Amino acid sequence: MTKSIIPAKLNKTKDKLVLLDQTLLPEKEKYLELDQREDIWEAIKNLRVRGAPAIGIAAAFGLYVCLNQYQTDSVSELRKELKEISNYLATSRPTAVNLFWALKRMEKRFEAEASADKSVKAIKEALLEESNNILKEDQKMDQAIGEHALKLLKPGMGLLTHCNAGGLATSGYGTAEAPMYLGFDRGYDFKIYADETRPLLQGSRLTAFELNKAGLDVTVITDNMAAQVMKEGKIDAVLVGSDRIAANGDAANKIGTLGVAILAKEYQIPVYFLAPTSTIDLQTKTGADIEIELRDGEEIRNGFGRRTAPHSVKVYNPAFDVTPASYITAIITEKGIIKPPFKKGIKGLF
Amino acid sequence: MTKSIIPAKLNKTKDKLVLLDQTLLPEKEKYLELDQREDIWEAIKNLRVRGAPAIGIAAAFGLYVCLNQYQTDSVSELRKELKEISNYLATSRPTAVNLFWALKRMEKRFEAEASADKSVKAIKEALLEESNNILKEDQKMDQAIGEHALKLLKPGMGLLTHCNAGGLATSGYGTAEAPMYLGFDRGYDFKIYADETRPLLQGSRLTAFELNKAGLDVTVITDNMAAQVMKEGKIDAVLVGSDRIAANGDAANKIGTLGVAILAKEYQIPVYFLAPTSTIDLQTKTGADIEIELRDGEEIRNGFGRRTAPHSVKVYNPAFDVTPASYITAIITEKGIIKPPFKKGIKGLF
Repeated sequence: MTKSIIPAKLNKTKDKLVLLDQTLLPEKEKYLELDQREDIWEAIKNLRVRGAPAIGIAAAFGLYVCLNQYQTDSVSELRKELKEISNYLATSRPTAVNLFWALKRMEKRFEAEASADKSVKAIKEALLEESNNILKEDQKMDQAIGEHALKLLKPGMGLLTHCNAGGLATSGYGTAEAPMYLGFDRGYDFKIYADETRPLLQGSRLTAFELNKAGLDVTVITDNMAAQVMKEGKIDAVLVGSDRIAANGDAANKIGTLGVAILAKEYQIPVYFLAPTSTIDLQTKTGADIEIELRDGEEIRNGFGRRTAPHSVKVYNPAFDVTPASYITAIITEKGIIKPPFKKGIKGLF
Repeated sequence: MTKSIIPAKLNKTKDKLVLLDQTLLPEKEKYLELDQREDIWEAIKNLRVRGAPAIGIAAAFGLYVCLNQYQTDSVSELRKELKEISNYLATSRPTAVNLFWALKRMEKRFEAEASADKSVKAIKEALLEESNNILKEDQKMDQAIGEHALKLLKPGMGLLTHCNAGGLATSGYGTAEAPMYLGFDRGYDFKIYADETRPLLQGSRLTAFELNKAGLDVTVITDNMAAQVMKEGKIDAVLVGSDRIAANGDAANKIGTLGVAILAKEYQIPVYFLAPTSTIDLQTKTGADIEIELRDGEEIRNGFGRRTAPHSVKVYNPAFDVTPASYITAIITEKGIIKPPFKKGIKGLF
């Protein structure tokens, strides 16, 4: 089995949270060893760890590592300390739902152990187990998504992906990249194309980095080359992740995904969105209900450390776009493959 | 009338070729004053001046400036010097057809004057006139293309352009940008969107720079945002230049043009290719006959002084793509508008 990078894990011997500093990629592969809450907060805040599952895992291990240092025999003192650390870490990235989810899950486990009259030592061990469970469940979910997706793919295929929905965002094989890793393990010999994904270049900085490091056959293209590689017959399927999927199957993802989906339709190439079922939000009826975040123009004007557009020029910088369900061939979750009509398929899943 | 930037012109008082150093844009607006053949050669070679018409104009003025320094009373000695300078300048960029065309035109004028027994002084004056004619004819051509295109546009429209087919590539209003400047002069209040155009960013570095400087309403987007701005209803027409148009209307242009054309079709937005008739090559039957230049991967991996993809990762870097005629609404030349069927329309023009 191929080793994908695990962006957030525990060094048990040192009792430290180990994070790959993703802000330094692809130039430097530097691992941070953290055991101070301020440092963990800073790492989440400044995107040294990113991707919803990876943030959750970092927060869980981080909470454990900080709490484990706290010397007390009193469960209620330990509870006070846990709440303090948890509340503090929760402020690091207030929009990251997985951050709160992981911290809440740790608190819940604490209470379960406490109400069973466990000792401080036993509670700490239970919290370590809970962090490990979060990591393992995530790896299993990636594996399940990958297995389902692989049924739709054939050896030798050319696969295009956009942004990074890979191991660097989770703790396993990622979502969109899970079938790529699984296929690699099984000799599928996929030819993978990674859009560089302007403005923040997650494709060339992260996706290309992790797939290349793991030995997969990956080629970087600029975003505007997607049509050309499709026209040349190099692409047999488009695989992308998703940030939110509406009840009707409309799917939000990194800016540029919509364009890729339209081009794929033109060249009759299937488009697959790969995401855990937790990404599907039944409260969001259609894509029209998803608000598009607008980001700072300097990401475009000045993104490579060198000015690439006039200082005074206007810039439009939406972070996401929504691909209407009509462009989506299938949504692939850990529970299985959903095909159109999505509304019905999604309902059936829940 | 709005003043667009003239990238290559003569300073008559100093007898020097004046070039805007486009390699420094958008950070610095620096004008070079050149009168040594080696410096002019270097400027063309290293893309300080670029765009077919602008290169031709730079070569013509450059040839004149160098020759004007040469002190002789002998027409045959002057001819020898002219050939030497011309042959030398021609080696600066061996793929630039307009470079040879302009130098040949200057040589032809020389011979016309020489066979009319003109003096060295009169010949030099004639060559100055010829350089000025090349510049003026180019400005007129831009104007004509712009006037034809403007008939297809309405005040208030949102216009999307890709790469730079503007004043920085010619000596006037450019080709794709000509109707934008003309419309601005006439209060059309266009909202212009410029794709940044990776990998070399001609859109954000050049198009945004020149339109912004001239006071037009221009907004930069990354290439992968084109679909989103179209979906939001911000774009009413796509205007692009072309490097070569085949006899059937298939058109080569900067990489990414094909993708934009497909997206525009999906959103029922007209796509206009604007180019002088000299761009239409009847020897090229269809786009399939146009070879796509593949460029160095470092442009993508390391284009802006900072590594943005792993050093060892594969990169695919086609410089151009070919948009099939079926995605093109009209081809707009100085002689008029060509609509489908293009094969017939193009034939009719010649």
